[in-house]
Amino acid sequence: MVRTARAFTNIALIKYWGKKNQTLKLPCTNSLSLTLDRFYTDTKLTIADNDHDTVYLNHKLLDETQNKRILKYLDTVRQFYSFDDHFIVDTVNHVPTSAGFASSASGFAALAAAINETKQLNLNKRELSILARNGSGSASRSIYGGFVEWIAGDSNETSFATPIDENPQIDLTLLSVVINKGSKKISSTVGMENSVKTSPFYPNWVTLVASEIKEIKQAIAKKDIQRIGEIAEHNAMSMHALTLSANPSFTYFEPETIRIFQIIQELRQKGILAYATIDAGPNVKIICTNESITKVQKYIEEQLSNVSCVVANIGSGIQYI
Amino acid sequence: MVRTARAFTNIALIKYWGKKNQTLKLPCTNSLSLTLDRFYTDTKLTIADNDHDTVYLNHKLLDETQNKRILKYLDTVRQFYSFDDHFIVDTVNHVPTSAGFASSASGFAALAAAINETKQLNLNKRELSILARNGSGSASRSIYGGFVEWIAGDSNETSFATPIDENPQIDLTLLSVVINKGSKKISSTVGMENSVKTSPFYPNWVTLVASEIKEIKQAIAKKDIQRIGEIAEHNAMSMHALTLSANPSFTYFEPETIRIFQIIQELRQKGILAYATIDAGPNVKIICTNESITKVQKYIEEQLSNVSCVVANIGSGIQYI
Repeated sequence: MVRTARAFTNIALIKYWGKKNQTLKLPCTNSLSLTLDRFYTDTKLTIADNDHDTVYLNHKLLDETQNKRILKYLDTVRQFYSFDDHFIVDTVNHVPTSAGFASSASGFAALAAAINETKQLNLNKRELSILARNGSGSASRSIYGGFVEWIAGDSNETSFATPIDENPQIDLTLLSVVINKGSKKISSTVGMENSVKTSPFYPNWVTLVASEIKEIKQAIAKKDIQRIGEIAEHNAMSMHALTLSANPSFTYFEPETIRIFQIIQELRQKGILAYATIDAGPNVKIICTNESITKVQKYIEEQLSNVSCVVANIGSGIQYI
Repeated sequence: MVRTARAFTNIALIKYWGKKNQTLKLPCTNSLSLTLDRFYTDTKLTIADNDHDTVYLNHKLLDETQNKRILKYLDTVRQFYSFDDHFIVDTVNHVPTSAGFASSASGFAALAAAINETKQLNLNKRELSILARNGSGSASRSIYGGFVEWIAGDSNETSFATPIDENPQIDLTLLSVVINKGSKKISSTVGMENSVKTSPFYPNWVTLVASEIKEIKQAIAKKDIQRIGEIAEHNAMSMHALTLSANPSFTYFEPETIRIFQIIQELRQKGILAYATIDAGPNVKIICTNESITKVQKYIEEQLSNVSCVVANIGSGIQYI
């Protein structure tokens, strides 16, 4: 009986922003994330009796444009493991767009695990992380639960995630504040490429990430949420400084992003623990404690009408169900 | 008959952001500005018959808190030129707060020129620029009209502004978009100090400014407004990247700042010339041509209700009237 693979999404506390190798998806720096419990992808593979891949997302057949990225990935995997089988991919995404998280991290982690399961490749977690990375860089981290570091490496075999603390006993909760606004988006792939190529600050970003990874690992070991928040916020804002200093300048911020950042600073002045992290989009994720999160959510919903809030806790690694 | 000194404000196209010497106001980098015709300060000095300085701003006597910065400056000047006279300072500011420009540039340039006039110091423009710089860094540039470069230097005598083109025949017009919002402000002095001390990107800013000054001077020589705009916008956004990457992060942006930046990008997509520059505050100044400015102003006023627009053209240097 072939099992379904389940992978959870993750939020980067130290951001992945820039590739040194586009094809292999090798990043310029390490990154560090927290796997979340709330959002996940379930994927089941069946070997097809023909030479075509078929992809169902949320029980709907994807057309040739929609399934392109997945088919290209399956071609890479076939070549890599020297097999010819094609698949019926059945994937169900529990990462609603309205939650403000990218689904590619959980999506490619679940797909990699499903291939491992169906083809009985017996990959260990490191190999699974490498396989997932070839689909989407951040998917490499969703193989593990808790705090996870993606080691940049310098080849396909040396670029993989590794767990920092898979089951941390820490009072950290994440509030995702979603700005209900359809805005023209610069994809993270294009955004990071522009930053690497044109931001005069990029070389210093590489140095910064190295030192902040070190610092945040110390804070994680001490279960110091405030310090984790401070480092994560500074790292995220520095990533967005790379988009502003790209040439031409661009930003993922929307007006509401700035307002939420102002509110977070107001909350801290009231002594409420809240730190911002922002990915390649306008939404703000707020690092809170179990104590602070209710106050933070209440305050934000009072101040802003056009947002929705979603709470997530620390999640686990790949599961087979 | 003692004449009144008039100095115009200026807008930095390559920003002054960071001091290497706080006391002498020596900047870390050169900067380059455009003097504007619309906003100015008129200052007249009379030698007092006692040993007290008295300051009238817009015909109102300033109290001990309000006049502190000016009195400290006058002490410095007395020491520097070895005289004992105190003054009645009569200064009228035609830089309304609602125009979104700092009045310290025109204010200290006019005061320096007024001291020169009243004490008959016979300073040349370079000496006047040095004298103004001791009051406020950006005041050094308001001695000249048109495009002006402030040479950073490394001592009091070597840090002064110099004209690039005092009377440029160029079709450049500036639209100041003022966000009508009272927000808690981080002074530019504090903001730049935090950036120098804590932004990991600051060293690269110094290198960036050197190359952008060179490029913008070439664009000015060619009267290439689009290129001037591109360089100025990138430089301003890179300055704001320094605040985001400061530790802790901060920003001068308000929600409306982002909205105006989005509008500028929309306008450019329509083929309308518009480039943003932003100082240490939320307001956006837009570099336009005589042709584009009407469309830009109309579009902004249609999209945003809570802003006011002010048009300025290229202005001249110090005048005595």
